[in-house]
Amino acid sequence: MNNKVKITFLGGVGEIGKNMTAIEYSDEIIVIDAGLTFPDDELPGVDIVIPDFSYLIANKDKVKAILLTHGHEDHVGSLPFLLQYVNAPVYGSRLTLSIVENKLKEHPKVKLKAVAVKPRNVLKLGSFTVEFIKVTHSIAGALALSITTPAGTIVHTGDFKIDYEPIDGQMTDLTRLGELGRKGVNLLLCESTNVCRKGYSMSEKTVGRTLETIFESHKDNRIFVATFASNIYRLQQILDLAEKYKRKVAFTGRSMINISEVAMKIGELHYNRENIVDIEKVNKMDDKEVLIVTTGSQGEPMSALTRMAGGEFKNLKLKENDLIVFSASPIPGNEKNVYKVVNALYKLGADVIYDELADVHTSGHACQEELKLMHSLVKPKFFIPVHGEFRHMKLHKELAMSLGMEARNIVVATLGLQVELTPNSIKEVGYVTAGQRLVDGYGIGDMDSNVLKERKQLSEEGICVVCVNINNIAGEVTGDPFIITRGVVYAEEQEAFVQDAKAAIIASLKEQDLRGMEPAVIKSTLRRKVSNFIFKRTKRRPIILTIVTLD
Amino acid sequence: MNNKVKITFLGGVGEIGKNMTAIEYSDEIIVIDAGLTFPDDELPGVDIVIPDFSYLIANKDKVKAILLTHGHEDHVGSLPFLLQYVNAPVYGSRLTLSIVENKLKEHPKVKLKAVAVKPRNVLKLGSFTVEFIKVTHSIAGALALSITTPAGTIVHTGDFKIDYEPIDGQMTDLTRLGELGRKGVNLLLCESTNVCRKGYSMSEKTVGRTLETIFESHKDNRIFVATFASNIYRLQQILDLAEKYKRKVAFTGRSMINISEVAMKIGELHYNRENIVDIEKVNKMDDKEVLIVTTGSQGEPMSALTRMAGGEFKNLKLKENDLIVFSASPIPGNEKNVYKVVNALYKLGADVIYDELADVHTSGHACQEELKLMHSLVKPKFFIPVHGEFRHMKLHKELAMSLGMEARNIVVATLGLQVELTPNSIKEVGYVTAGQRLVDGYGIGDMDSNVLKERKQLSEEGICVVCVNINNIAGEVTGDPFIITRGVVYAEEQEAFVQDAKAAIIASLKEQDLRGMEPAVIKSTLRRKVSNFIFKRTKRRPIILTIVTLD
Repeated sequence: MNNKVKITFLGGVGEIGKNMTAIEYSDEIIVIDAGLTFPDDELPGVDIVIPDFSYLIANKDKVKAILLTHGHEDHVGSLPFLLQYVNAPVYGSRLTLSIVENKLKEHPKVKLKAVAVKPRNVLKLGSFTVEFIKVTHSIAGALALSITTPAGTIVHTGDFKIDYEPIDGQMTDLTRLGELGRKGVNLLLCESTNVCRKGYSMSEKTVGRTLETIFESHKDNRIFVATFASNIYRLQQILDLAEKYKRKVAFTGRSMINISEVAMKIGELHYNRENIVDIEKVNKMDDKEVLIVTTGSQGEPMSALTRMAGGEFKNLKLKENDLIVFSASPIPGNEKNVYKVVNALYKLGADVIYDELADVHTSGHACQEELKLMHSLVKPKFFIPVHGEFRHMKLHKELAMSLGMEARNIVVATLGLQVELTPNSIKEVGYVTAGQRLVDGYGIGDMDSNVLKERKQLSEEGICVVCVNINNIAGEVTGDPFIITRGVVYAEEQEAFVQDAKAAIIASLKEQDLRGMEPAVIKSTLRRKVSNFIFKRTKRRPIILTIVTLD
Repeated sequence: MNNKVKITFLGGVGEIGKNMTAIEYSDEIIVIDAGLTFPDDELPGVDIVIPDFSYLIANKDKVKAILLTHGHEDHVGSLPFLLQYVNAPVYGSRLTLSIVENKLKEHPKVKLKAVAVKPRNVLKLGSFTVEFIKVTHSIAGALALSITTPAGTIVHTGDFKIDYEPIDGQMTDLTRLGELGRKGVNLLLCESTNVCRKGYSMSEKTVGRTLETIFESHKDNRIFVATFASNIYRLQQILDLAEKYKRKVAFTGRSMINISEVAMKIGELHYNRENIVDIEKVNKMDDKEVLIVTTGSQGEPMSALTRMAGGEFKNLKLKENDLIVFSASPIPGNEKNVYKVVNALYKLGADVIYDELADVHTSGHACQEELKLMHSLVKPKFFIPVHGEFRHMKLHKELAMSLGMEARNIVVATLGLQVELTPNSIKEVGYVTAGQRLVDGYGIGDMDSNVLKERKQLSEEGICVVCVNINNIAGEVTGDPFIITRGVVYAEEQEAFVQDAKAAIIASLKEQDLRGMEPAVIKSTLRRKVSNFIFKRTKRRPIILTIVTLD
C-alpha cells in the first residue's frame, strides 16, 4: 500500500471565508469545514457565496466524514448545500452541531447524521485517526484537529487564539499540541487571519474588566450591549455582570435569543433563567435594573439595534441617558453601517461606547506571537498557511521561516490546489475545479454569470426599452414608438426626454428604407441610434432593449 | 447698524466631506470652501456628490468672496459647480489655486477670478477682515482663517495638524493663533476628523525616517512608492531620498505628473529636473537606479499601480524583487480594493510594505492633544465643531467641555443650520435648504430620486419586460408573448424559464374575458401574474415592464 495522502483546498486559501479542505487517502476523503462567504457590493442581489465543491460531488462515495472546527458561518455555512450531494456523518462539538441543526431547519429536506465530540476524543475514521483538540476562539466549542494518516500526522488549527485567562477555564490545549509535536507532526495547516498583528491578542477577560468599569460608572442608566450572538464567552461575562449589578437581562434579535437558549441548554452558558425578562417588560422597569443584550453590532440594517436607533423597534424606545456599548469591532466593510447607527444613537441623546473609545472587544484570532507559539509547539516538518488572503499566507510563510523552517517545506496554496504528502515529502500535484458558487434566491450561479454583469450595468447605467411597430410592406412606422426607462433619467427631465427620444427614433427610422427589412436589422440599427441619443443626452450607456413588431 | 452675523452650514457637518460654510452680515456673504464627496455603493452610477447650495444661488448677489482653506477635493471639488451660479472672487494659497485652475480645465465655460494669498496676509472684504494663518496638513498651502466681523472674531481652523518637524520648515502658526486668542476670539470652528484618536499624530518626518530605512535595506531593488499626489511633503521626502540614494524618479499617474509639476513651478516642491525620467526609460535602467512614484495608493481600479499589478500597464512590467511601498492608509471603504492590489503584487513575486506593517503613513488631522492645544490657544467664547460625523462633533464638544467650556456655548450643527452670532451670544435661528446634489453624467439629481431607487432595485432584482399582442375584439392573444429578462435568470436556466413564463402568461390571459378590456387593466393583471410567477421560480422581485399592444 502506498503512503500518499492528497490534500485539496476547496476554500479558505487566498481569501478569508468559505473554508473547506479535503484530505484523501486511497478511496477515503474527510472534509474539514464547509463554510460560506457573505457577498460584497460587487455581487448585488446575491444572498451567499459557497465553495464550488464539484470535486466532492464527483467523489461523493469516498467522503467518509465532515469535520467542523467550530460554528461560525465561514466554517459551517455551506453545509446545508454540501449535504444535498454528499451523504456523510458530521463531527463537531455540541455547540457547533446545535448551530448546524438550527440552520438546517430552513432546509427540511437535508438529513444530518451528527456525531458530537469533545476535546481529546480520538476517532478512527477509515484509514484516518482523528483527535479533537481544545482551542480558544471567539465562539465556544472550537476545536483543532490532529489527523493521523498513512503519510504522518496532520495538525489543522482551525481558528484559534491563546488566552491565559479563558472564560471557560479551558485554555487552548498547548500541552497536547506540544506532545503531538514531540511525537512528530508531518504537516501543519495553521490559520493566518491576524498574522499582520504584532504581539498577542488581548484576553477576553480584559474586555470583561472594561465592561465592568462601564457598568460601575453607569449604575443609573439603562445599558444596552450589542455583540455577536455566537460569542458565548462575551455573553457569559455580560450575564455575570448583570447578576453582579442586579440587572435583569432581555435578549433581542433572533440569533441572540436562539444561541443564548441553545448554549445554556448544552451547558456552555450559565445563567439564572429568573434573571431573563421579555423585552416587552423592559419599559415598566427601573432604568438601573435593565440590561438589553442585542444583535446589530455590525450595523446590520434589519437588526434590533439598528431598528431601535431608527425608532422603528416597536417594543422599546430609546431615550436620553441610555448607554449603548458596541462590544465588537466593525468587520472590514461594515464601518459605514456601524457608524451610521452610532451617529443615530448619539442624535437620540444616548451615550455610545465603541471599540475606538475603549477596550470593549478583542479578536478571536492569534496574533504573531501566538502563531509563533503554535509553530514552536507543533514543530511540523511541512507547513501550509490557511485562512488568509494571499498577503496573510505569504507573511505567515515568512513567520515560519523566521522560526527556522525552510521555504521548500512550505506551500502557499490557491483555490483548487491539490498537494501530495508522504512521510518525507510534500509537492503540488495539480488543480481541481474550485471557486465560488453564488446562491441567489433559489438559483445557484457562477461568478462570471450573465446575471451579475447585467445587474452591475443596470445599477450603474439603467435600462431603456423601446418598442416600435412597423409596416414593412409600406416601410412606415405605425403608431407612436413606445419608450420606458428605469434608472436613466431624473423625474423632472423624464417628459422632455421621452418626447425627444421619440422624435429621434422616428427621424432615424425615416432615414432608412424599411420596406422588406428584417426586424433583426431594424432592431440593431435602432439600438445603436437610441444608445447614441441617450449617451449624448446623459453621458450614460444603459442596456437598450428594442422590440420591433410588424403589422 | 446691528452686530448680528449669520453662519450657515451647507456642508461638512454630520459628515466628512463636501465642506461649505457661509458667513453673512447684512448683504454680504463670504463662503468658506466648496467641497465634494465621492459616492459610496449606495449611489450606483453617481459620479460625485456636491452640496445643495441653493441658499447661495438665491443670495448670489451677496456673495463677495469664496475662501479656500486648501486644495483637497472635499474643500474645492464643488467649486466648478458653484461658480456656474455665483460670480465671486476665489481666495486661497497658490497651490490651492493651481489645483483649482487645473480642475477648471474640464469646465471651460467657468470663469475664475483667483486671488493668491499667503500666511499672515490680511484682506478687507466688505465688512469682514480676513487673515490667513499657516497650518500644517497633508497637503501644502493649507490655511486657517481668522475672520473679524461686527460680531467679533471667528477662527476657522480648516484641516490641520501640529507637526514640530514640518517638512517646509513652517509650523502651524501657534504664535498667531495665541495672539488672536489673547485679543479675544468670539467663535471657533474647528475640524473634528481625528477627535476619536488619543495623543498626537505622528510627525511627517517619522514617515521619512521609515522610508529611509526601507531605501537603505533595499539598495538593489527597484522601488515603487504609491502615495497621494497632493501630499507634497511626502513627495518632497521621497524625492530627497531618491537624490540621497542616487535613484532617478519616474512619476506615473495623471494627478502625480500634474501636481508634481505644478508644485515645483510654484516653489512648493524642490527637485532637480535632471533626476526625473520618463517611465518608458525605466526598463533600460539598473534596478538600483530606479524609483517610481505612483498614484493608486487606494487601489483605484484605473490607477497606474493597479494596472501594473494586473499586468496591464504597457510601459512597465513588474518583476520579482520589486519593492512596492504603499505610503498611505486605506480610506475607510477602500480596504478591499487596496488589499486586492497588495495580494496581486505579492502573487507577482514583488515585496510589499503597507501601513499595517510599518510607519509609512501619518494622518494630516489633529488628534486629541493637538485639538486641545488649538482650543487652549484660541480660547474662544463660543465653539462649533465642524468637519466630522455627528459622533465626532459630539466627542469634540465633550473635549471642549473637558477644557472648561460650558455646554450652552457650544453648538452641534446639522446640515442647513443657521446660527446667529453677536459679540455676546450664539443661537440657532433656523434652517435653510441644504443636502446632497448628485452629479451623474450630465444630470444633477437628488438623493431621493427615482433614478437611484430604480438602479438599486435593478441591481438587486433585475428586470423583466413582457410584450403581448391582443385582439380585444375577439378577446384573444395573437402571436407569441415576448419576454426579455436582465439580471434575473442564470444563462443555463434561461430557456426553460422563458418557455414556462410564456405558458404561464398565456394561461393567465385565457382565464380572463379580454373582450373590450382596457389595455391598462390587462397590463396591471399581467404584471401581477408575471411577478408572482418569477417570485415562485427565483425568489426575486424584478421590475416588471408590461407592454400590451392591440390588433
